[in-house]
Amino acid sequence: MMSNWLLPESLADILPAEARRIEELRRNLLDLYRTYGFELVAPPLVEYIDSLLSGTGGALNLRTFKLVDQLSGRTLGVRADITPQVSRIDAHLLNREGVTRLCYCGSVLHARPAGLLSDRELLQIGAEIFGHAGVEADIEILELALESVKRAGVRKARLDLNHPGVVRAVIDSDPALAGAADDISELLSTKDVPALAALGDSVPGIRPATVRALLDLASLYGGTEVIAKARQALPALPALLAGLDDLETLVRALPAHEFSIDLADMGSGYGYHSGVVFSIYAEGWHDALVKGGRYDGVAKAFGRSRPATGFSLDLRKLSSGLPPAQVAKAIRAPWGTEAALVAALRELRDAGEIVVQVLPGQPHRLDEFTVDRELVLDNGAWKVRAVQ
Amino acid sequence: MMSNWLLPESLADILPAEARRIEELRRNLLDLYRTYGFELVAPPLVEYIDSLLSGTGGALNLRTFKLVDQLSGRTLGVRADITPQVSRIDAHLLNREGVTRLCYCGSVLHARPAGLLSDRELLQIGAEIFGHAGVEADIEILELALESVKRAGVRKARLDLNHPGVVRAVIDSDPALAGAADDISELLSTKDVPALAALGDSVPGIRPATVRALLDLASLYGGTEVIAKARQALPALPALLAGLDDLETLVRALPAHEFSIDLADMGSGYGYHSGVVFSIYAEGWHDALVKGGRYDGVAKAFGRSRPATGFSLDLRKLSSGLPPAQVAKAIRAPWGTEAALVAALRELRDAGEIVVQVLPGQPHRLDEFTVDRELVLDNGAWKVRAVQ
Repeated sequence: MMSNWLLPESLADILPAEARRIEELRRNLLDLYRTYGFELVAPPLVEYIDSLLSGTGGALNLRTFKLVDQLSGRTLGVRADITPQVSRIDAHLLNREGVTRLCYCGSVLHARPAGLLSDRELLQIGAEIFGHAGVEADIEILELALESVKRAGVRKARLDLNHPGVVRAVIDSDPALAGAADDISELLSTKDVPALAALGDSVPGIRPATVRALLDLASLYGGTEVIAKARQALPALPALLAGLDDLETLVRALPAHEFSIDLADMGSGYGYHSGVVFSIYAEGWHDALVKGGRYDGVAKAFGRSRPATGFSLDLRKLSSGLPPAQVAKAIRAPWGTEAALVAALRELRDAGEIVVQVLPGQPHRLDEFTVDRELVLDNGAWKVRAVQ
Repeated sequence: MMSNWLLPESLADILPAEARRIEELRRNLLDLYRTYGFELVAPPLVEYIDSLLSGTGGALNLRTFKLVDQLSGRTLGVRADITPQVSRIDAHLLNREGVTRLCYCGSVLHARPAGLLSDRELLQIGAEIFGHAGVEADIEILELALESVKRAGVRKARLDLNHPGVVRAVIDSDPALAGAADDISELLSTKDVPALAALGDSVPGIRPATVRALLDLASLYGGTEVIAKARQALPALPALLAGLDDLETLVRALPAHEFSIDLADMGSGYGYHSGVVFSIYAEGWHDALVKGGRYDGVAKAFGRSRPATGFSLDLRKLSSGLPPAQVAKAIRAPWGTEAALVAALRELRDAGEIVVQVLPGQPHRLDEFTVDRELVLDNGAWKVRAVQ
């Protein structure tokens, strides 16, 4: 027999000190986004599955818990990602012309964990800019993503920058590769040079220049010098050059940061990205802390095409890699309902002090607070003194 | 064909100004609970159904969305109430002797709405005291519940106080009513006096004194004078007198508040309450804003009997009845990445100002903020001035 209190795999209770730290990170980041003018929205935890997955890829579908709506008989999904929901709100509910900046923070569930060490419940927080196709919006998003991890106290964040449009331009330029885009991306992201070199034999009609470009792409990773190398090595296709221009503008706009670029990596995620994509990594976290980028295609599924760029991160994961949370100091007080004690308690608590009343005859233990002072009756007046 | 962006019945997006107000209420109340020494926990959104419903009644089961865990093949439930989860955390995870104070704030889902006007997604916030069976814990919980609605700006809150132990003592005292407790409670809560009076005929062997007591209970509602009336009218059963004593202690401990008492109402809710129960009502909300009380039985299902008392409320419902949220003031700034502008933006934002950069060539509209100032270049320096 299984115990009633065992939790399902990859799901956990968050206990006091950790829960409080996550709450503080939440406030800190939402306040940051507010100072940039991002408006807060909260889409529902469940939606009709066809709406929830509109414009997104199959990876998100596999990760989404399905349930039956007793009121309509239709299939609902528990959201596995909030970004497409926010895109829906921008496209239809707000229905504004021009730029809209939205942010959010909420729980998401994954039917299967994203990785070996991943949880199935995430506290996703993120910010999105809708309505501006220019690289200026990407710069603001990138800056805010970097500031987010900095505010959380993450040291030595590393930024990976990519543009799936570069690989896509090469693939689209050769009719012999029509329909093979996914396979080619896979070979490129795993840097499978032998298989890429063999494309000349395995794909009928492929141009030798295409094979050369794909082989070059597999070696185009490193620092920002990769952009200049790519201009020399790759064919001058308009979409490819536009992608490299975007990357260059971004790198120039954020001179204080170190970038790593891998032109062969199209960024996996949920496959809805269409322009510049990025990931932030840091020591102490086994995979990307933040993922973001441009995803102009998603809103189209809601019948209104809107440029979009944004990022998100999991506050629980962010907190789990930080040093242990600080424990707050508290005051111990006796139990009682007499007016003078009640007034003393009120005054301390209104001033932000944590005052724990000891209930009659009860020991107590606290994980989130340390009692360092006590409220005592001294010559008829309630006073705070250090615990002896 | 249904539009992709229609939401399921009784589920909604929360838009900017409202979402921000809910976030502020959340912070305000969690901070309040912290000053009383309540430690924050966050149980998972889904659990095995048998764990999630342990010690609770059938009403909660009907309200719980079920889904299949792909990893274990077992049935999971999306929580419809966080209280039993927090009880599980106290009983097993923290496993402390003595008093533990826990608070929480998280989303819950209802498969069916609780009432005609109710939503199916709630943002439940609450506080619970475990390990103390005395009325002192109930007093602290009641005080905190009242302070919660006060902090939220609710005027003229009305407090309904009950003790299901009073009715239960009368029912338990007569063997003829064994197994009929639910039916009798139903008759009492609907004040069905004719049916109660007919019990002498319809229930074989029922004592005339029991029928009299049940009829008296049906009229025992009103102000705090009800407690004294009950002492005179009802039989002096030990459990009944203990219940009246608890009510009297509570009323005396909170002299500033007005109470309404209905001894016939056992409090519906999820049927896990065992001692004093209460509800807070206010003008502008169609049903109870806060529900709380003692539920010593729930932890027993987790194999460890712990006294427990607490309350919870739905932040979305609380916000929906308040006056329209205030719109914050913001500063408009031009787009640019030059050092002087970036420094000016940083300084304003660090000081807590909301600064919205206008992206090139884009109009903008904001619901959550009003732009009343702008950042302009004046003689080579960036300055804030009123919008003209």
